[in-house]
Amino acid sequence: MGEVEHVVGMDIGGTKMLAVVFDDQFKPVGRFRKKSKAKVPPEQHINNIIQGALDDAGVQKIRGVGMGSPGPLDPDTGVIIDTPNLGWKDFPLAGIVQDHFGVPAVVDNDVNMGTYGEWCFGEVQDCRNVLGMFPGTGVGGGIIIDGKLYHGASGSAGEVGHMTLEVDGPFCGCGKNGCLEGLASRIAIAKEVVALAARGDAPYILENCGTDLSKIRSGMLSRAIAAGDTQVERVVRHAAFYVGVGVANLINVLSPEAVVLGGGLVEAMEDLYLDEVTRAVNDHAMPFLRKNVRIVPAKLGDDAVAMGAARLIHDKLAS
Amino acid sequence: MGEVEHVVGMDIGGTKMLAVVFDDQFKPVGRFRKKSKAKVPPEQHINNIIQGALDDAGVQKIRGVGMGSPGPLDPDTGVIIDTPNLGWKDFPLAGIVQDHFGVPAVVDNDVNMGTYGEWCFGEVQDCRNVLGMFPGTGVGGGIIIDGKLYHGASGSAGEVGHMTLEVDGPFCGCGKNGCLEGLASRIAIAKEVVALAARGDAPYILENCGTDLSKIRSGMLSRAIAAGDTQVERVVRHAAFYVGVGVANLINVLSPEAVVLGGGLVEAMEDLYLDEVTRAVNDHAMPFLRKNVRIVPAKLGDDAVAMGAARLIHDKLAS
Repeated sequence: MGEVEHVVGMDIGGTKMLAVVFDDQFKPVGRFRKKSKAKVPPEQHINNIIQGALDDAGVQKIRGVGMGSPGPLDPDTGVIIDTPNLGWKDFPLAGIVQDHFGVPAVVDNDVNMGTYGEWCFGEVQDCRNVLGMFPGTGVGGGIIIDGKLYHGASGSAGEVGHMTLEVDGPFCGCGKNGCLEGLASRIAIAKEVVALAARGDAPYILENCGTDLSKIRSGMLSRAIAAGDTQVERVVRHAAFYVGVGVANLINVLSPEAVVLGGGLVEAMEDLYLDEVTRAVNDHAMPFLRKNVRIVPAKLGDDAVAMGAARLIHDKLAS
Repeated sequence: MGEVEHVVGMDIGGTKMLAVVFDDQFKPVGRFRKKSKAKVPPEQHINNIIQGALDDAGVQKIRGVGMGSPGPLDPDTGVIIDTPNLGWKDFPLAGIVQDHFGVPAVVDNDVNMGTYGEWCFGEVQDCRNVLGMFPGTGVGGGIIIDGKLYHGASGSAGEVGHMTLEVDGPFCGCGKNGCLEGLASRIAIAKEVVALAARGDAPYILENCGTDLSKIRSGMLSRAIAAGDTQVERVVRHAAFYVGVGVANLINVLSPEAVVLGGGLVEAMEDLYLDEVTRAVNDHAMPFLRKNVRIVPAKLGDDAVAMGAARLIHDKLAS
């Protein structure tokens, strides 16, 4: 019997970091999660989290590490160019992990890794061209073209959340106006919902969150809608429709075989999102391009980025 | 001395068709142009035009034929799926030419062929990822990814003119609202210009075209602006800015190295278009994605589609 060969997949988020050890069948055999902010230097923090997952799995030997991180970053060198949330600038993430563990490491955008995971392990494994769309705190997108993650000339393609959908639309976090993200992210929804609460038009929200935007999480929106806050539903549907307009634009440009919808908002309100996105695609994608496109919900949940990252390092080692 | 080996490139438009014979240095050595509407059946008409170009060149023997045609079409089989302007449905264009001339033929979208021509023979030969954007009667786009024309799963990707840029925007010919084409095509401009003329706000236009939309061609717009019709300039700049918003969205999604702007409107008003597109890209593309993108005007003019088509059949024969 040969030695079991493990890989590590890591999800580096703005608030938490998760490392998962997978066996050669991609079954998770150990994991470790920590807040992103730490007292130790970031290189030490990351190595500690990976070590924590190895300890949890009781594994000493690994073949490689895949990491999904917020961008922009250079997937060829594994250097994070700039991640304001984490205070990283020209941070050689792959090199740090490679040097410490003595194995190859690969870094890609977290949304790309999530899309790759959903493609490799979810419902659309038979497709060669896949769009992943993940509305959440922002609106991220991942593009798979001809069976490979697409990076463009800069290495950072796929900023689908910053497509302009209304030239004079609402402010976006990027400093522009009318981006998909400014119209459809959780923050874009939450600001409308707290305004509803302040006006007395969202009783469930007012009772449970007051008018504090930070308390408006995906689950809270879902519960408010179930409890009968009809104006909250209207706001969420409006945002979901814009996600669908973004999907429609990308169907028109990229003509994928499948679209995977994921992220916190979709997980909390899957039917509503599929409903509105399908409606928007029917309204805004060209009939001959949309007719064979499957629109499916993501299946991997919180492990999507780690699984995609683990699979990507596995595929790179195999190629 | 070896035999000179010729290829034919053909531009199949809604109003005219052009065939050009090229030598092995891609120098045009003969050409023939006819109106698209003809009394003979379309297969005979096309073969006649190719033969006309061969006769003009004094060439009997060719290696292959490349053809750019309005879509949607299937580039793998060379079948035109549907071209309402020409009344073609499931029309086996490549097969017809192959059978008649006994040489390989390739068919692709006309805008793809134009983009391919500009990439192979224009200013951006050193780039691997190129976006071509051609505002005219419609707004067409061609995408080159990793040195190859991009077709997506359906074969008909790149419908950039039908990206939605304003959800409740003006009517588009496709039946939707707020597409780039509905905001920025020559017809979108012309309808505003004849309204200006009718209101007395475009004296040069009123004097030269009355209020007849069909007379508002690209050259006429350029002359009206030069003659001091400031409201016409405002309308054209507004449309050109939207072309730029479309370019910005595609930079955010695709991260190309270069964007080629062509088509009748750009040829007639190159400085205005480069100016407005650059302004829109600065406003609407992410700084880390736009910083190295070159935006250049097309160089091949009316021969772009034929040259791209000739080069594509040449490259296919060589591969």
